[in-house]
Amino acid sequence: MARVVDLNSDLGESFGPWVMGNDAAMLDIVSSANVACGGHAGDPEVMYATLRLAAERGVVVGAHPGYADREGFGRRVIPMAPAEIGRMVAAQVGALQGVAALAGVTVRYVKAHGALANLAAERAEVAAAVAGAVAALPGRLMLLAISGTELEVQGRKAGLDVVSEVFADRAYQANGQLVPRSQAGAVLHDPDAAAERMLRFLETGRIPVLGGGEVALAAGSICVHGDNPAAVEMARTLRARLEGAGVSLRPFAGG
Amino acid sequence: MARVVDLNSDLGESFGPWVMGNDAAMLDIVSSANVACGGHAGDPEVMYATLRLAAERGVVVGAHPGYADREGFGRRVIPMAPAEIGRMVAAQVGALQGVAALAGVTVRYVKAHGALANLAAERAEVAAAVAGAVAALPGRLMLLAISGTELEVQGRKAGLDVVSEVFADRAYQANGQLVPRSQAGAVLHDPDAAAERMLRFLETGRIPVLGGGEVALAAGSICVHGDNPAAVEMARTLRARLEGAGVSLRPFAGG
Amino acid sequence: MARVVDLNSDLGESFGPWVMGNDAAMLDIVSSANVACGGHAGDPEVMYATLRLAAERGVVVGAHPGYADREGFGRRVIPMAPAEIGRMVAAQVGALQGVAALAGVTVRYVKAHGALANLAAERAEVAAAVAGAVAALPGRLMLLAISGTELEVQGRKAGLDVVSEVFADRAYQANGQLVPRSQAGAVLHDPDAAAERMLRFLETGRIPVLGGGEVALAAGSICVHGDNPAAVEMARTLRARLEGAGVSLRPFAGG
Amino acid sequence: MARVVDLNSDLGESFGPWVMGNDAAMLDIVSSANVACGGHAGDPEVMYATLRLAAERGVVVGAHPGYADREGFGRRVIPMAPAEIGRMVAAQVGALQGVAALAGVTVRYVKAHGALANLAAERAEVAAAVAGAVAALPGRLMLLAISGTELEVQGRKAGLDVVSEVFADRAYQANGQLVPRSQAGAVLHDPDAAAERMLRFLETGRIPVLGGGEVALAAGSICVHGDNPAAVEMARTLRARLEGAGVSLRPFAGG
Repeated sequence: MARVVDLNSDLGESFGPWVMGNDAAMLDIVSSANVACGGHAGDPEVMYATLRLAAERGVVVGAHPGYADREGFGRRVIPMAPAEIGRMVAAQVGALQGVAALAGVTVRYVKAHGALANLAAERAEVAAAVAGAVAALPGRLMLLAISGTELEVQGRKAGLDVVSEVFADRAYQANGQLVPRSQAGAVLHDPDAAAERMLRFLETGRIPVLGGGEVALAAGSICVHGDNPAAVEMARTLRARLEGAGVSLRPFAGG
Repeated sequence: MARVVDLNSDLGESFGPWVMGNDAAMLDIVSSANVACGGHAGDPEVMYATLRLAAERGVVVGAHPGYADREGFGRRVIPMAPAEIGRMVAAQVGALQGVAALAGVTVRYVKAHGALANLAAERAEVAAAVAGAVAALPGRLMLLAISGTELEVQGRKAGLDVVSEVFADRAYQANGQLVPRSQAGAVLHDPDAAAERMLRFLETGRIPVLGGGEVALAAGSICVHGDNPAAVEMARTLRARLEGAGVSLRPFAGG
Repeated sequence: MARVVDLNSDLGESFGPWVMGNDAAMLDIVSSANVACGGHAGDPEVMYATLRLAAERGVVVGAHPGYADREGFGRRVIPMAPAEIGRMVAAQVGALQGVAALAGVTVRYVKAHGALANLAAERAEVAAAVAGAVAALPGRLMLLAISGTELEVQGRKAGLDVVSEVFADRAYQANGQLVPRSQAGAVLHDPDAAAERMLRFLETGRIPVLGGGEVALAAGSICVHGDNPAAVEMARTLRARLEGAGVSLRPFAGG
Repeated sequence: MARVVDLNSDLGESFGPWVMGNDAAMLDIVSSANVACGGHAGDPEVMYATLRLAAERGVVVGAHPGYADREGFGRRVIPMAPAEIGRMVAAQVGALQGVAALAGVTVRYVKAHGALANLAAERAEVAAAVAGAVAALPGRLMLLAISGTELEVQGRKAGLDVVSEVFADRAYQANGQLVPRSQAGAVLHDPDAAAERMLRFLETGRIPVLGGGEVALAAGSICVHGDNPAAVEMARTLRARLEGAGVSLRPFAGG
């Protein structure tokens, strides 16, 4: 069994007066924090506070750029040319790096958010634009990508260190893709069942397929959510079960 | 006489479909371009295009952060604590640095915009926040400040290389401060008169005071504007007159 | 004792993916809902949902315009000329009226939010601009103003029906003004104490002053908050105590 | 020949400090002004100024809602459910109606902008959402739709008075649709040729097809553009040629 794994979560998704999720609780659970960059969520104050909270807990920080569409929370595809996407990603990751410099924190990796992540998972030219922006930015940033996607391919082509992730709370299809949220059974709600799947995955490299069977996936990180109390509880359970099974949590992007 | 001086201008202030000024013309005139960072103006597309245009002409690039208030074009004071201002500046300069990395350009300095520049000129804690953000950012950024201001003081305190600017088209008071725009005679409209003043300033280090007399100022850069055809013409005349008098234009923040 | 009073609350202050407060719970408590108009908070989806929820419960609806400053939640004074403020208020109230028309609901009154309300409470020209916009809009809108303010004066001058409000959870000064939030004791946290004060106020027309004594105030509505569970509980207690004392809740702006 | 026609143009598309087009010139040419509502362009100041300019010239005013996407100028399809589109349209038209009330002007009609207009031209459920919002708003608003589109159908179904428009400067396909801008020959640049086409259209009800032939179209208004000096010149020529041929300009939505 893999004795070491990373847990990552999307954090810093508050905005102005509006709070989303429980970042403080999640930062006690995960080893890597994907911090919103002011595009789909976040602002300089939220970025700074999240970066400081992460640093105080020794959690490694990545940038989490998404479509600059707050009302849609980055979940809508905004029609943009790939080159425009690259510039948007560069601006957002740069903004987080700027605030991180002020916070005394180093941004170690990039993970695309929402509709941008989904598009970059499928379309080579979008994936190449994201990967190209990450490669151009300073700091030898790693790329955290959904396992089995075009973004992994293009990230490696761009010379990036690519780490893949699986989702603790999402069902999979036989081709290794996620079951779309619109479909019944797409999201797991039982913390113990989710933990069980992840333990099995770390042991076998295989994940159950909705409807039966398994699929082999490669991943160095498990994504957990924290946008509601049940999600936080699931993440906490997963961590406890992993540690109980002798698996160490360790950020993939070394300190 | 000073045989060398820098000409700087605020550029990259278009936004989405809206064009402001004539950046291409100005980039043939100035030696340093203050590029908006998506706060008071600019967006990733505008930043990228401006940075590329500047690079093609060998114009040195600085970041031009301002209050994140597009409707007010950064000319309104948005009530913020100094620490909030520092984080905003870090995010904006970082965003430009991110796009610049993609454009293969290096951001060399920072100059505050509009109401933020005015506040940082007067209030030590605001000036210190701006200077602190600039000092924390990577790339050994220089600071371009209005001559005779608190921002110069705090910039040097923060260990920054500070260069001061005078305005070719603005009248001065006896204390070295600009005559407020609301006052008659605050803005010069005659290109030749403006050029004459700047030549005298380079020779004597003194600038005429509205109402009579002169004031001594130190400056390594002259700020020109390009937001309308008359402003572009004034900048062009100034450059021609400077060169005609044997003054070389050279960016203060060396390549 | 006044046998009838109105309870109002600021609602519809969510934005995009971000939820603020518990509007459904508050709409079971109040008789009037001040609905954000997309300026400091709200968007067409949030407006529509809030208006429909209010209509289903027979709660009367007012518009709650504020500075168009989401990051500051309308709590920062954005420098604007009074005429600009009037146009901003007209656009925001008009937007809510537009969505209300689609929702089959009628907007009955206007109440200014946050920093705009505070400025309109003190400065006659700002108050006149707000009142003028309200008077110009269709639908014979009433004005809900903080008791004892310039906005009341200017509202009446503009020919509006003005109703005044007191705050259940805020301490007062001897001059009838609120104790600023920055001061100790400014906010009441004990639901029963707050209810007690309001019952006394309805009986006597006088409200206790922080530090001792009382001040006479006129008010047809009591403002309660719902942005956190304790606030909802305070509002619920107040309603129960009022009804227990034989006071009827009735919207000031009749159906 | 039709002795009377309307000329309409998209105006009020400036934003904050950024000016677009020459509204003052266009308002001397057209009989109807489609005024942006703060979504793809415009803000309360721009709305107010445009409405006042129009009123001073006796130009009838309509609302011109579009996707709330300034960076994309409403030319990108933002994924939204039809019901969301209806609420967005209601909010935007309501905002303009609010400012118009303050300006002493009545909004007479609605015309969708950019990507929203294109989508409503093709998709019945989007067209129905737009038409439904217009029908729900006060003021018996008319609908100005592109000739030959689904929006006309749904507008009539919703009980609206629908007026159709043709474009003076755009080439047509045999099916009555516009030639997409991406195609060669899509946009006419010769003012006289454009005027000639429109005169022939008013006489015959038929418009030339790119590549040969003609197509019959019904229209009560001709759309002209004003976003650059050449466009203004074309509009001016068209008006002069129409009047020279004895055609009267008259707003379709009567004062």
